[in-house]
Amino acid sequence: MKHLIDILDLSTQEIDELIAVANDIIAHPESYAHRCEGKKLATLFFEPSTRTRLSFEAAMYELGGHVIGFSDAANSSSAKGESVNDTLQMVGCYADIAAMRHFKEGAPLAAAVKSHIPLINAGDGGHYHPTQTLTDLLTIQREKGRFDHLTVGLCGDLKYGRTVHSLIAAMSRYEGVRFVMISPRELRVPSYVPEMLREKGLRYEETDDLDAAMPYLDILYMTRIQKERFSDEKEYLRLKDSYILTPDRLVNAKAELSILHPLPRVNEISVAVDDDPRACYFRQALNGKYIRMALILHLLEKAQEKGNSAAFAGDKDVVFDAAVCNNPRCISTIEQELPRAFRVRGGKRRCVYCECEA
Amino acid sequence: MKHLIDILDLSTQEIDELIAVANDIIAHPESYAHRCEGKKLATLFFEPSTRTRLSFEAAMYELGGHVIGFSDAANSSSAKGESVNDTLQMVGCYADIAAMRHFKEGAPLAAAVKSHIPLINAGDGGHYHPTQTLTDLLTIQREKGRFDHLTVGLCGDLKYGRTVHSLIAAMSRYEGVRFVMISPRELRVPSYVPEMLREKGLRYEETDDLDAAMPYLDILYMTRIQKERFSDEKEYLRLKDSYILTPDRLVNAKAELSILHPLPRVNEISVAVDDDPRACYFRQALNGKYIRMALILHLLEKAQEKGNSAAFAGDKDVVFDAAVCNNPRCISTIEQELPRAFRVRGGKRRCVYCECEA
Amino acid sequence: MKHLIDILDLSTQEIDELIAVANDIIAHPESYAHRCEGKKLATLFFEPSTRTRLSFEAAMYELGGHVIGFSDAANSSSAKGESVNDTLQMVGCYADIAAMRHFKEGAPLAAAVKSHIPLINAGDGGHYHPTQTLTDLLTIQREKGRFDHLTVGLCGDLKYGRTVHSLIAAMSRYEGVRFVMISPRELRVPSYVPEMLREKGLRYEETDDLDAAMPYLDILYMTRIQKERFSDEKEYLRLKDSYILTPDRLVNAKAELSILHPLPRVNEISVAVDDDPRACYFRQALNGKYIRMALILHLLEKAQEKGNSAAFAGDKDVVFDAAVCNNPRCISTIEQELPRAFRVRGGKRRCVYCECEA
Repeated sequence: MKHLIDILDLSTQEIDELIAVANDIIAHPESYAHRCEGKKLATLFFEPSTRTRLSFEAAMYELGGHVIGFSDAANSSSAKGESVNDTLQMVGCYADIAAMRHFKEGAPLAAAVKSHIPLINAGDGGHYHPTQTLTDLLTIQREKGRFDHLTVGLCGDLKYGRTVHSLIAAMSRYEGVRFVMISPRELRVPSYVPEMLREKGLRYEETDDLDAAMPYLDILYMTRIQKERFSDEKEYLRLKDSYILTPDRLVNAKAELSILHPLPRVNEISVAVDDDPRACYFRQALNGKYIRMALILHLLEKAQEKGNSAAFAGDKDVVFDAAVCNNPRCISTIEQELPRAFRVRGGKRRCVYCECEA
Repeated sequence: MKHLIDILDLSTQEIDELIAVANDIIAHPESYAHRCEGKKLATLFFEPSTRTRLSFEAAMYELGGHVIGFSDAANSSSAKGESVNDTLQMVGCYADIAAMRHFKEGAPLAAAVKSHIPLINAGDGGHYHPTQTLTDLLTIQREKGRFDHLTVGLCGDLKYGRTVHSLIAAMSRYEGVRFVMISPRELRVPSYVPEMLREKGLRYEETDDLDAAMPYLDILYMTRIQKERFSDEKEYLRLKDSYILTPDRLVNAKAELSILHPLPRVNEISVAVDDDPRACYFRQALNGKYIRMALILHLLEKAQEKGNSAAFAGDKDVVFDAAVCNNPRCISTIEQELPRAFRVRGGKRRCVYCECEA
Repeated sequence: MKHLIDILDLSTQEIDELIAVANDIIAHPESYAHRCEGKKLATLFFEPSTRTRLSFEAAMYELGGHVIGFSDAANSSSAKGESVNDTLQMVGCYADIAAMRHFKEGAPLAAAVKSHIPLINAGDGGHYHPTQTLTDLLTIQREKGRFDHLTVGLCGDLKYGRTVHSLIAAMSRYEGVRFVMISPRELRVPSYVPEMLREKGLRYEETDDLDAAMPYLDILYMTRIQKERFSDEKEYLRLKDSYILTPDRLVNAKAELSILHPLPRVNEISVAVDDDPRACYFRQALNGKYIRMALILHLLEKAQEKGNSAAFAGDKDVVFDAAVCNNPRCISTIEQELPRAFRVRGGKRRCVYCECEA
């Protein structure tokens, strides 16, 4: 069974195909209005996320299908101690495809192990959020017409911002892409990101100066400094206003700059920027619906094919043992019977669910 | 874009048309069963209201459309600090029309400012609830066959009862209507209501004696004394039983009296009254579905037309300045970037969102 | 109006018919895909239950209908003090059939009294859960081909496990059925169960030894020891692991044993048992959808017929008086205007709602 847990589960060719389908849907929505008739999507949201959930639901309805599900953990069976794996096996009796949002890292992967319906990761804690990345990629493609030879600025909370990490991972597969990572020192990207970029021979810079970087950017990806990621509220209050985009900051920007934001925003982009034609974030929200339509179609089609192997089964680098993952945000810390599994690569041992080093 | 924020956004002619369409839907439901095929309604309920939400959802389904949304604030992006305006712009990517319930006064108006889909106010705090008023009007029309020359009794909590205020505003546009406002002294209508009625030259009385008023009424509109409106629980307990309708109180009522109630009731109408043919409140709940069907059709049709201006844009009496609204229940008190705006009329300055005097 | 409150509301003939329809749906799903077009199911969940709710919703969608409703009490009008009877009368304006889950015993019966749409009890506290029993019966029929002459083991929490009580009641109507009730002494079935079995002349045993009972069983019905039923957490922790099913315990079981579980499970069945062909519980979850489809069709058909009497109206053994039910979990303890009613039979007086002795 083919699932989408991590954006890297998709080859660049598959991403190109999804984008082509999304563009075709935008051009000919009526041809897709009945493609999923009689099919059901389950939206399993163990933590609330209105935008992502509504985007999935709108996508399924525009394909002619139906939606069942829940929008927070309190209304789910997990409150009674059920494993995500059991939840998904149960849901597989009622729906044809599922999207899962979970507060624990690795939960969708853990859930997918035995699933006989395709599962889409709709965000697992601070870990992955591949449909956001697909949305970002469709937006870049529609605004820029290409993925290569772009200077991509990423601004705000780069430490905890999973959408940023995934976008860097996805864009690093294209030629001539250059990253400018703009954040306060305390919120820089984790060290594995520059390591990965160096390995791939890609150009990047880290800076805390948005204004200095502005003139060089083709894309400016703004992110929210999320209150819920801070344990210290004072630290949050000190930093949250550091990187607010206002019209006067855009004076030196390129005319063809594209400003993206995963939304919701708080105040990191001033409302006055909305009327600037370079502001793409509401178009981006709309693209989110279309790429999810393409993805649902793609996975339902793949589900017909046999032989897709589940999750990490058959991966020779994976060892199963009794060790416990040290990451308190990992799904393996709350599920008793989940097989403990670690991937050994380059002398390092990482939990297969959350990918933290063990 | 045409929205419905306040019942007075609709002319009496528009209300007549909506009622005519609702009556036609009741007579020929099958002709309407596919009118909204492929369309989506978003129900954005920042505070729970089962009846209103289910009524909207049933309406959309009976028109052949779909529904997405959320049923409480905890499951919405607002928990992350998003403005209602951003929420509605986002939702506009996923739905064709939206209904919003919010705990803050003026929230739907604030949300509608930039919306490119029609928005229906489904209740904003103690402020407006125009679809309830439309429901009441359809019920009066169906039960009485007319709006003019009726004696309308309003009983219970007239101070905080927004459905009462809106019904008075709507009915005061018809000829020969007389209001009997029955409540304990502490829960009388706000002073602007009698002022408005005097200005319009309409007859009204204020009394605390339900039994004395009973024989004269064509309509008796009962309301719940809402616990959540009282800061002092003792005061609530003392007053809540003051105006309970029982079968023996109806002995002196007209044979053709119509008893309305917006529901839910607690105990202000005894269950024993339900079997009286003069009890209209469950028929009223049913009418709520039909008038919402008519309204959804009307606003979707209007959305095709160009040139409808948004909200208070272009209103020459509106001034924008930095002053803050004094009403703690106003949406402007919780949204940082909402333009502060006041309407100046007759020497008074009122917040455009909540209409409180500033 | 025909409702389903208690599994014994259905004759064995009606159950046979429902099972026959469910089997026909499984064989020919396409013939049922449009049966409920234009119809709406209301799912009224005053306490969360994902599985049951999703199962009902999937059932309605696979019949071509729509679903409205709520998934917890916080989002319902009951938070404002509305009676379940009023809720159902209101919902009857918006939906064609309803399923209710409630935390109070007898709530669905109380709600059904005046309803003009069919109501399905989707679980009322620790009292009834007839659609789970129908699910269990369909599973037994599909796995075993018959209901008579079976040895049925019931294991776990037999004291509070309402699914167990209902299954025993339903199976006790078939010939030659023998029950083996396996539980710690503290969690044995209530005394009325063995009394009822003795009255009917059925064979049964009570034991605390799962391993000794295993070789004789045709069916093993496992249940969760539910944390929420214990007031003392230590007692819960001491007992919860007592009856865990593992592969080695199945060594002496029959080759054609069928293992059932209402789900969700916590750890009472080891995940390692899932791959055993005797494990039926995920097939059982799937059967839950099909039997609910059959039930919805059955009740909607019956709703066309006139003359079905509501609830306990016309029951000569029922007396109405002012006495209050002693059971704190009974719906009559929280609803002011609900008629107090008791059924007198065999010298005993039982509350009609919760059936507790008064």
